[in-house]
Amino acid sequence: MALNDSLGEFLAAAVDAAKRAGEIIRNGFYKTKHVEHKGQVDLVTETDKACENLIFNHLKQRFPTHKFIGEETTAANGATELTDEPTWIVDPLDGTTNFVHGFPFVCVSIGLTIGMIPTVGVVYNPIMDELFTGIRGQGAFLNGKPVKVSKKTELLNSLLATEAGTKRDKATLDATTNRINSLLFKVRSIRMSGSCALNLCGVACGRLDLFYELGFGGPWDVAAGIVIVQEAGGVVYDPSGKDFDITAQRVAASNPLLKDAFVKALKESE
Amino acid sequence: MALNDSLGEFLAAAVDAAKRAGEIIRNGFYKTKHVEHKGQVDLVTETDKACENLIFNHLKQRFPTHKFIGEETTAANGATELTDEPTWIVDPLDGTTNFVHGFPFVCVSIGLTIGMIPTVGVVYNPIMDELFTGIRGQGAFLNGKPVKVSKKTELLNSLLATEAGTKRDKATLDATTNRINSLLFKVRSIRMSGSCALNLCGVACGRLDLFYELGFGGPWDVAAGIVIVQEAGGVVYDPSGKDFDITAQRVAASNPLLKDAFVKALKESE
Repeated sequence: MALNDSLGEFLAAAVDAAKRAGEIIRNGFYKTKHVEHKGQVDLVTETDKACENLIFNHLKQRFPTHKFIGEETTAANGATELTDEPTWIVDPLDGTTNFVHGFPFVCVSIGLTIGMIPTVGVVYNPIMDELFTGIRGQGAFLNGKPVKVSKKTELLNSLLATEAGTKRDKATLDATTNRINSLLFKVRSIRMSGSCALNLCGVACGRLDLFYELGFGGPWDVAAGIVIVQEAGGVVYDPSGKDFDITAQRVAASNPLLKDAFVKALKESE
Repeated sequence: MALNDSLGEFLAAAVDAAKRAGEIIRNGFYKTKHVEHKGQVDLVTETDKACENLIFNHLKQRFPTHKFIGEETTAANGATELTDEPTWIVDPLDGTTNFVHGFPFVCVSIGLTIGMIPTVGVVYNPIMDELFTGIRGQGAFLNGKPVKVSKKTELLNSLLATEAGTKRDKATLDATTNRINSLLFKVRSIRMSGSCALNLCGVACGRLDLFYELGFGGPWDVAAGIVIVQEAGGVVYDPSGKDFDITAQRVAASNPLLKDAFVKALKESE
């Protein structure tokens, strides 16, 4: 079988898995309001695990030689090294805080690396029923329609996304808000949606022009989104301007025209 | 006709107007990507004006003695004083930056004050097809189903919404990000959606626990949302803890259980 045929098959299986996991998330999403706090945490864990199991089983059955890295599995067993083997990198529920609160930015994120290069990406928001897909070299799509990054050339007209993160020590928080302060002088406005994968997809479809995040959870937050941004004509890079490193928990994304100005603004915000 | 019957009639007319205006917004929303920058600004103005005209004409025809305050009209003719007369306060397109960028948090906001008290509220997001409604004393609804504010009692478990605003002078921006810095130590996380009216509705349906904004556009951003929050069991107040003043461009909203702690945290963030 030619690689391109395989890639199509990999994508189809990932979409299938994402839609099934999405159903579990959708069911939980509308339940969270009716359980107590302890129950909410359990509901997140349950949903997370149920989705990860479903996705891994679905993909393992079809592609028994592939490797797997998932947020839940890593949390339980420690980090798995990324190798050249085809490796599925999965966040079964991105946006867990949103999930608990019922804020509609939650998603399943399923990425496949081959030779450590993100090659297939699926991000599915089951609440808004938005399915973002991408295959390296074959374009990016939202619900089957091609998407493109924005054509903005000036930071001043650009909509920036970032997140406050989960760390609450003074040094990290001060750095976070100082960076936002510095950037707000240079961009049109800022959005915080609470989902790293959906922020990447927002850049891919041109709803957002700029995105950066430092200290997110792990490669599962970005593995799928990277392919989708790149295939939509965008670029993904380290906020310093260096090459993106999927293990570094630092990401920036934009169209190519904004990259230099964005990196400069990010440097000035340190 | 009894007042309660009238209120139902007012709401029905406002919903009808919001849905029609929503169609104009939806059409424009998917067009913004295909016009140049100058064209985008024109498209916002055109959409804003077309929606405001449609809403005013629709309501004036049915309620010829009522007064009207709208963002576009005020921008053109200066502020209209709010009186005890039944007065429709309308933001034909809240979230204009989102509209231009295609970020799905845009809405029509139609509020009615009687004796200067917000009495009927309709907020419609035509992209996500979410219709929030409220009549004073008769509950709040999302697409016809009752909504309630969250039951959170601790800031630490609460999801906060605010906005960066549009002012970019150093004093305002520093105050904005210092406030966010201070609050981030005390709450679970922060969201910025870009729509004041939808942030209020987010509090009403419990997706968000806390919202404040200083320096928003005018009463049209909040007139409808206030009724919806209050009818969902929430409270709307000045961020200082004093009574809310619809002309003051300062708003805070939460469930009643969080109010004191939120006001204290807001004071400490000055």
